[in-house]
Amino acid sequence: MFILPIMKIRLLQIGKTNEDFLVEGIKSFEKRIQGYITYSTETIANVKNAASLTPQILRQKEAELILAKLKSDELVILLDEQGKEMHSRGFAEFMQQQMNLSVKQVTFIIGGAFGFSDEIYQRANKKISLSKMTFSHQLIRLIFAEQLYRCFSIINNHPYHND
Amino acid sequence: MFILPIMKIRLLQIGKTNEDFLVEGIKSFEKRIQGYITYSTETIANVKNAASLTPQILRQKEAELILAKLKSDELVILLDEQGKEMHSRGFAEFMQQQMNLSVKQVTFIIGGAFGFSDEIYQRANKKISLSKMTFSHQLIRLIFAEQLYRCFSIINNHPYHND
Repeated sequence: MFILPIMKIRLLQIGKTNEDFLVEGIKSFEKRIQGYITYSTETIANVKNAASLTPQILRQKEAELILAKLKSDELVILLDEQGKEMHSRGFAEFMQQQMNLSVKQVTFIIGGAFGFSDEIYQRANKKISLSKMTFSHQLIRLIFAEQLYRCFSIINNHPYHND
Repeated sequence: MFILPIMKIRLLQIGKTNEDFLVEGIKSFEKRIQGYITYSTETIANVKNAASLTPQILRQKEAELILAKLKSDELVILLDEQGKEMHSRGFAEFMQQQMNLSVKQVTFIIGGAFGFSDEIYQRANKKISLSKMTFSHQLIRLIFAEQLYRCFSIINNHPYHND
């Protein structure tokens, strides 16, 4: 019997996923991830009247909402263009290390359309970039879900990943 | 009135897109790309009994099918892990340059599950990597479609892209 690791993974995101095709795709990978590890998604409601705010003010308001969700002992990883790019196997090794170090809770955060404020960068333990290219913060959710599924298929030696 | 550029873009891919959510997502970006430029997708049927072939033989068979589709005067760009990573603006500048050089036909190719054979690498004019991470050759279709849409929204100064 396969026993789920003690480590839990959570994804924090801003605003619900708009496109049906993304909702469907993300759901399908989430289910597959949950076969490997406890995984949940938490969606922070969009800031009201966001369109009337400057990007800077919007990022600050989003930061308050994000920080309110974070406990002091969780490992916080931003999915961010300024982050470090990794190969899929490197990402899997990093996640395996966190399990080996008995990290209990890893929280990944995908920011809003204008990214993160300085407060969030200060709280973060790590930043990972999924690509040099920019993708919409909505599409990133699907890309991340596939990559996290790939990560655990690598850790468990299952044949999803080809080098 | 907006006049479509003379340059045409084509995507060649191996095997039909399996997941409905990907079909939906790709279709939605394709329509938006076609507002900017003549764009089509051509799907090469999967090689028969592919599962019984070695990756090397499969890549060779796929290469024959791909090469039969290519004319000598088109600019062939592989979407490939070994390729050069670009920022979204850099990709848009590159595509703008091709239009400035009066390139008539650009063909992007997404390989099969095991990538490309040497014959394809030899024919290619350029290789672009969308990420250091590995994504499934099916998901790459959606990621590419969003990036090509983003590229033309940048070229046309439309407000899809935030730096």
